[in-house]
Amino acid sequence: MKVEYINPFISSAVSVFATVLSCDLHRRGLQLKDRLLPEFEVSGIIGLAGRASGTVVLSLSREVALNAAGAMLGEPCLDINADVVDAIGELTNMIGGASKTKLEQFDMRLSLPTVIVGRHHTIQFGSAATPISVSFECPWGPLSLDISLVEHPELVAS
Amino acid sequence: MKVEYINPFISSAVSVFATVLSCDLHRRGLQLKDRLLPEFEVSGIIGLAGRASGTVVLSLSREVALNAAGAMLGEPCLDINADVVDAIGELTNMIGGASKTKLEQFDMRLSLPTVIVGRHHTIQFGSAATPISVSFECPWGPLSLDISLVEHPELVAS
Repeated sequence: MKVEYINPFISSAVSVFATVLSCDLHRRGLQLKDRLLPEFEVSGIIGLAGRASGTVVLSLSREVALNAAGAMLGEPCLDINADVVDAIGELTNMIGGASKTKLEQFDMRLSLPTVIVGRHHTIQFGSAATPISVSFECPWGPLSLDISLVEHPELVAS
Repeated sequence: MKVEYINPFISSAVSVFATVLSCDLHRRGLQLKDRLLPEFEVSGIIGLAGRASGTVVLSLSREVALNAAGAMLGEPCLDINADVVDAIGELTNMIGGASKTKLEQFDMRLSLPTVIVGRHHTIQFGSAATPISVSFECPWGPLSLDISLVEHPELVAS
């Protein structure tokens, strides 16, 4: 996965958090994803497919998930309930949507988001893809964005 | 989600298990997905995107995951390790690929599969989509296939 494809995802996450949640994200680090690293408690996943195939995982600590959903819904959220899950799915959808717009050469469309809830769950990518994990800190706590993108050169318009 | 869109996914799962794993799937039931139902221990997720957007979740009990991976790899699998995760991702990919071919009117492509591992994890779809969950039994144990598909009528060729 080319490094230049990471920035559209990072800038989309920063921009969506700023405009939708009024929340400043600070990037902490960037690494090849350790396949054994557990995710935070709430993870939104969305797929992208077109002239490249990709997957984005937005993983949030419980506090970040509750505060982000609260900011979207305009009321405090105390538990990871259906409304919070919907909000995190929509947040994931917005980050995927903004990213694909910035990677227009791949003419990708979005799948439907799913949201995983569970302590100590892991999300692993197959060996065909090498995901990159970007860690962030925000005033509510830690979060991460895992990105994998595989080009289909035979489908890219010349 | 129209019921006629479910059958391509069901027949693809049955066919992939039969041809790749020499394993007979028996359908047990079909229901709207209960958002609070935990998944089995290993779940493969893949997205589809084109003139419709969808997500497929193949969730396997530990025994089914180990036996399915063993059948693909040609050797016994005793733990949910990286090879097993790869095999389940590939199985999910094959079911997604066969399904999209049967739904060619939507001209969909596949995202990259991810595999969730964790006891008691839940996978929830946003309120915009109403997933249908199909439960199966095979000689190795229980599994399920959750499917969600949303049409984009504005993109469907007339």
